[in-house]
Amino acid sequence: MKFKINRQIFLNNLNKVSKAVNSKVPYQALTGIKFTLTDDQLELIGSDNDLSIRCIIKKEINNEQVMEIEETGCTVINEKIICDIIRKIDSDYVEIMVADNVAKIKSEISIFNINTIPAIDYPNFDFTFIGAPLSIDALELKTVLDQTLFASSDKESRPILTGLNISCANNKIEFVATDTYRLSKKIIPTEYNDSFRVTVPKMALDEINKIIELGTTVNIYITDKKITFDLGDCTIITRLISGTYPDTSKLIPDVFDQILTINTSSLTASIDRVSVLLNERNNVVKLNMKEDEVFVSSKSSETGSALEKINNDDFGYEGKPLMISFSGKYLAEAARALNSDEISLHFTGDMKPIILKSKTNKDLIELILPIRTYN
Amino acid sequence: MKFKINRQIFLNNLNKVSKAVNSKVPYQALTGIKFTLTDDQLELIGSDNDLSIRCIIKKEINNEQVMEIEETGCTVINEKIICDIIRKIDSDYVEIMVADNVAKIKSEISIFNINTIPAIDYPNFDFTFIGAPLSIDALELKTVLDQTLFASSDKESRPILTGLNISCANNKIEFVATDTYRLSKKIIPTEYNDSFRVTVPKMALDEINKIIELGTTVNIYITDKKITFDLGDCTIITRLISGTYPDTSKLIPDVFDQILTINTSSLTASIDRVSVLLNERNNVVKLNMKEDEVFVSSKSSETGSALEKINNDDFGYEGKPLMISFSGKYLAEAARALNSDEISLHFTGDMKPIILKSKTNKDLIELILPIRTYN
Repeated sequence: MKFKINRQIFLNNLNKVSKAVNSKVPYQALTGIKFTLTDDQLELIGSDNDLSIRCIIKKEINNEQVMEIEETGCTVINEKIICDIIRKIDSDYVEIMVADNVAKIKSEISIFNINTIPAIDYPNFDFTFIGAPLSIDALELKTVLDQTLFASSDKESRPILTGLNISCANNKIEFVATDTYRLSKKIIPTEYNDSFRVTVPKMALDEINKIIELGTTVNIYITDKKITFDLGDCTIITRLISGTYPDTSKLIPDVFDQILTINTSSLTASIDRVSVLLNERNNVVKLNMKEDEVFVSSKSSETGSALEKINNDDFGYEGKPLMISFSGKYLAEAARALNSDEISLHFTGDMKPIILKSKTNKDLIELILPIRTYN
Repeated sequence: MKFKINRQIFLNNLNKVSKAVNSKVPYQALTGIKFTLTDDQLELIGSDNDLSIRCIIKKEINNEQVMEIEETGCTVINEKIICDIIRKIDSDYVEIMVADNVAKIKSEISIFNINTIPAIDYPNFDFTFIGAPLSIDALELKTVLDQTLFASSDKESRPILTGLNISCANNKIEFVATDTYRLSKKIIPTEYNDSFRVTVPKMALDEINKIIELGTTVNIYITDKKITFDLGDCTIITRLISGTYPDTSKLIPDVFDQILTINTSSLTASIDRVSVLLNERNNVVKLNMKEDEVFVSSKSSETGSALEKINNDDFGYEGKPLMISFSGKYLAEAARALNSDEISLHFTGDMKPIILKSKTNKDLIELILPIRTYN
């Protein structure tokens, strides 16, 4: 294998595939990036066996030469080392030659000889596209991920909840994440005709969210065990989480007894301040609402108590007075996900779910459960 | 105790004294900041028992009123909580009232009730100045700390080496830090007539370095067991490290066999790149020098090897050819400390100390020991 390549384009693509590489995976080949050089392109693959990312660099991009290919071939090079070298080299182009399990990387002033891993040791990942794709605009997909993923669970005790549930039927796609204490649900229209229901690992979607480039269309292919995201020059496959996702369709009430409409930053800043007295274990914030007054408060036997009044211009309240307690962190995260200057909180009682919505984001619902308190 | 205070000035001073507070200290009173309010000023003290910082906020600063004092008194308030509240409150002024072991902190929209710690539990620290001060310009002191402190040891096995040795005699102050593998030494002139030799903990000096404000003069008072830094409105005391500091005066040779003059960033960038193949345990970089060529290289049995040629315009070399190995991290840190575009490396043999100097910083010497290699 021997080629010369534009350093910046090479680095951008290495950085993308490296997002799937986890140096802690016990299988040595997977600590590397697989290079496959053919007559007209370089294929890079990174994987931790659950998430696999493939990028293809064409010899020419927009009629500009990106690579000079002298000899085709394939190899596997340690991900951390190759990315560090290509990032730090001070040169527009780099030359790479592989022979006898050593990759020689040359710039104008430096030569690196890197021990490689035999390409034959690298698992074979299937990046072919099967069936008709579900197409989503990149910005729309990023928005969905930003607004829902945070609500999924970090706890491995119920693996199914560590993913985002994506279901499609009747020309609608529904995205649901929940850790049983809170839930995010977003519905978007689609022209896709098939129906499916899958749960995709949160970790994989976090990485995909970093790689998606705005202004493009993402084509998604779903099979029994995996989901493939085609981003054009970059393809991402991730395993699906097996198991049955809990039915969340009946959790969200239609009729509400109280509605608080409130300036988002006024609410989140208040929660942030009164939370100063709290800690990770006790994170309970209380809302005390009546028509003309809204208070945010907190209390801790160790540290003290805090009480804030929401400015009268910053809220509107309908319904009987209500006191309700909840996780300040969860409410603030749900409020931020709605990404709107003003949000509405909907209540049906002090022990019933709190529903957060915004006028600008009608397809998104955030739910958090209240917390029972005894003072 | 009852007063109203300008929030920003209050916060700036809280942030300074909080640098001495360590929430892990087992003595509860020291997790707090001590407030002592008298008729014309508020005194704040933070301490971990080794390092103590006192700030004084006058009622008026430059004829502008900073505080309204209604009732004098003293108390101790948890450092993290008071700093967080004052930082997050959205108000130009805050009111503080303390009664019955509760501090009430009021802004326009919020009331915090914080459990306090009795002031009587707080240790008494003596901030009086004894004797004539040694005066150093703030910028000069900061420069000395930046250029020397990094060379002191992190290992508690020889506590004396975890400090900066400061000695004064014959109108010169000498600052020395060493971890036995490297050494930084800086000498500055002084009008101070006494002589002394003390070792000051690195951790304390790191915090002092953050607090010193440029454009001021720092007055330093030394007694047997402690050193006091008077920064005007802020006073810092730290314990000294007991024990005899090693004599380093004979370590630095006067005559050299080889001298390499080199562009600093060219050298440090090269070391940075060839170090990509190395790790914390094996950090060995080699310089291979002759009159018309200088190479920087590294080698690891696990990962591979790297070789860089220094651009001919970037160096000058006098003396017989020399190959010498050293810690790349230590050499790069010493080179950066000299803070000069061009530095010179002085050699007397491949197993003798390497001395780094710069023309712009003649009072500073950086030394690093070479490392024996077998390949």
